[in-house]
Amino acid sequence: MNLILLSGGSGKRLWPLSNDVRSKQFLKLFQNEAGEYESMAQRLLRQLRAAFPDASVTIATGENQKSAILNQLGGPGVSVCCEPQRRDTFPAIALAAAYLYSEQGLGEDEPVIVCPIDPFVGPDYFAALARLEAAVRQGTAKLVLMGAAPTYPSAKYGYFLPGPAPAGAAGADAAGDLRPVAWFREKPSEEQAAAYIAQGALWNCGVFGFKLGYLLGVLAGYLPVKTYREVYRRYAELPKTSFDYAVAERETAVSCIRFEGEWKDVGTWNTLAEVMSQPALGNVVLGGGCENVHAVNELEQPLLVMGAKNMIVAAGPDGVLVSDKHQSSYIKPYVDGLHQRVMFEEKSWGSFRVLLEDPRGHSMTVHLAVRAGGQMSYHCHQNRDEVWTVLSGRGRATVEGRETPLCPGAVLRLPAGARHTLQADTAMELIEVQLGRAVEDADVEQF
Amino acid sequence: MNLILLSGGSGKRLWPLSNDVRSKQFLKLFQNEAGEYESMAQRLLRQLRAAFPDASVTIATGENQKSAILNQLGGPGVSVCCEPQRRDTFPAIALAAAYLYSEQGLGEDEPVIVCPIDPFVGPDYFAALARLEAAVRQGTAKLVLMGAAPTYPSAKYGYFLPGPAPAGAAGADAAGDLRPVAWFREKPSEEQAAAYIAQGALWNCGVFGFKLGYLLGVLAGYLPVKTYREVYRRYAELPKTSFDYAVAERETAVSCIRFEGEWKDVGTWNTLAEVMSQPALGNVVLGGGCENVHAVNELEQPLLVMGAKNMIVAAGPDGVLVSDKHQSSYIKPYVDGLHQRVMFEEKSWGSFRVLLEDPRGHSMTVHLAVRAGGQMSYHCHQNRDEVWTVLSGRGRATVEGRETPLCPGAVLRLPAGARHTLQADTAMELIEVQLGRAVEDADVEQF
Repeated sequence: MNLILLSGGSGKRLWPLSNDVRSKQFLKLFQNEAGEYESMAQRLLRQLRAAFPDASVTIATGENQKSAILNQLGGPGVSVCCEPQRRDTFPAIALAAAYLYSEQGLGEDEPVIVCPIDPFVGPDYFAALARLEAAVRQGTAKLVLMGAAPTYPSAKYGYFLPGPAPAGAAGADAAGDLRPVAWFREKPSEEQAAAYIAQGALWNCGVFGFKLGYLLGVLAGYLPVKTYREVYRRYAELPKTSFDYAVAERETAVSCIRFEGEWKDVGTWNTLAEVMSQPALGNVVLGGGCENVHAVNELEQPLLVMGAKNMIVAAGPDGVLVSDKHQSSYIKPYVDGLHQRVMFEEKSWGSFRVLLEDPRGHSMTVHLAVRAGGQMSYHCHQNRDEVWTVLSGRGRATVEGRETPLCPGAVLRLPAGARHTLQADTAMELIEVQLGRAVEDADVEQF
Repeated sequence: MNLILLSGGSGKRLWPLSNDVRSKQFLKLFQNEAGEYESMAQRLLRQLRAAFPDASVTIATGENQKSAILNQLGGPGVSVCCEPQRRDTFPAIALAAAYLYSEQGLGEDEPVIVCPIDPFVGPDYFAALARLEAAVRQGTAKLVLMGAAPTYPSAKYGYFLPGPAPAGAAGADAAGDLRPVAWFREKPSEEQAAAYIAQGALWNCGVFGFKLGYLLGVLAGYLPVKTYREVYRRYAELPKTSFDYAVAERETAVSCIRFEGEWKDVGTWNTLAEVMSQPALGNVVLGGGCENVHAVNELEQPLLVMGAKNMIVAAGPDGVLVSDKHQSSYIKPYVDGLHQRVMFEEKSWGSFRVLLEDPRGHSMTVHLAVRAGGQMSYHCHQNRDEVWTVLSGRGRATVEGRETPLCPGAVLRLPAGARHTLQADTAMELIEVQLGRAVEDADVEQF
């Protein structure tokens, strides 16, 4: 199976744990059977691997998620296809299709399945993906969608209506439940949603199946190219529009399959709480009188909740949220108003967390966690000096071409303008103090 | 007026803002008329200064509060009398009385007023203190107490019952409302309290007035000494008992005055919320649907509260509390169970805050804020190295007798065993990284 997993989203609805660089799909909030915490993306990939051991997975995303994806999902059979700039799902899928064609050598007659990286689903979902692939392979429809049987009239999902089965198509074969799509409706009101459901409409799961050549043909209608490098170079010429709008809703030969199992788009604290395996995660004490409370604490310091009812509490490096569960759906405008620095970020070499920020912008103190084998780019800063103090682990720093061994207690001064990098032999932790007239994230030059 | 202010308490009931070294009276939660935040102790001292500009104030406390007291309350007319060890209010008051006698040269016939450092009171309280002092000076009673007119049957306060006025004592003079005390009752049930109030009992405000010689006489019953140095040296021989129990409840010639104004012992989040001038303090956003919420955030990162009702939210370096207001009175056993390190502490030279703690105890990263003119003791650590990186300000470090100037960006390594100190010429901020086999607060030797 050839899968394109779409990984996007700025994730403000799960603030303070998610932010501009840490989307909801990378939050490690789910416990697997071994008791380890995994993210929604890790959970889906683990489920995919179990269902389709030989699947080839290409993750379509932006540069800002590349490090998190490689850290969490990197491994054999997984490729990452990064957009040069954020546009929308149609350009991202077109770029990934070109990547499969020119970089992976996939034939134009091969089926490709596109799905989001973060639905919360059970095993039925993967059986439905297999049915969908079989339907694409059979070739009666150019584009096949997956629709989930709605369980309530949600105003947050898109809907489509399956039409009657074409004459002679019903049967016991793999594509036996294939139906043409009569219409699409984007996020309706709850009243409209209830009416659609009464008509037999399904939730649009954002899952699309097609043969590779079909999408290259659609792409050709916008750009006369089909290799990854060419699409990448001319990416800005593709329209900033969704796959639903640019392809699915315009295609006449579009069909769908119906899927009955568990399917949730875990996009708000309220829906996340529904799928958490336990009410508290991290250093949390739920005291007397708590009812229907979910609490997540990413800080080392304890979170004590007493006598709360129907509430979400979340604490992390970016801040603290205390919200009634229902109210938590309306978080976005408040978070948009916060204008805060990202305090935690996954990097290709590990992660950094801001410990202290000078309000005048003259200094910042940061904790760096570097994985064993992790290596920073060779880079320098124009307007700030840095002081590294090694807390644990061993590695080597290179400053202006000169290598220095690093061990616990080592202190290294990096003056502004000095090109430097770090290579960790074991997992390392460092304190980095940034000092200058104006300490800014943007002040970095890479070589 | 000669005042002894009692400053004690471990303050777990206002966790996470209060802790073993930061009692509730030092939390800057009150806004004065100039819009500046002040603590309960600062508020009371400001009110005292306004009412009695020439008052001589002696603060009776323990070593662990000395730095906070000097930082917040230090100045002319204020002395600090530290117990060599924590006992109870009788020994602390006896030591302070000996201090007034031998160190301040106060005559044995002079009135002394003892009161807690942190009641939440209005101007009437100070008028009552003046009446109480006049009554002591008049000399009809050896010991004069202040009782507040109860506003509800509290189970948290002590009560005493004023008896009928002695024949011929009623009049318009300063001690005209002086009454003998018929009995004392410690923290009754709410039902008992209601019955006491119906009889005319008053809340025991913990305010005592006497002539200095009277208390030195009581002290002589336990120890044949009356100078500060002698009492300090033999402090462990004094009984670990309260002033109420050791003196007030045994004295036959004890009288009281009645006080009608505002008086609150702000000892829980619930009572603190009642006297906060605004619902939110610090970086707090109260979103839609909040009702009767009080939120205090000492962290730099934002606290967002949505749709909460009748709740207290408090966030600080030691942790986060989210509690129903009523439930917050039952916090103590939960906090007792947390066993956590103190993350923020006031020091004689400024303050320190733990930014990062290695769970294995091999390192700790600390932010030091040193006030202009602040100077650490000359000290060393046996089992840890330290690295200082100066973020801002100017000063001098002395390491093994050798002085080094410090300015922003300066880095100083302090190996284990090296005696060192810091003197700040301007306000300074530093990052201190502690590294060693076992990083512990107790590892400090002072010279």
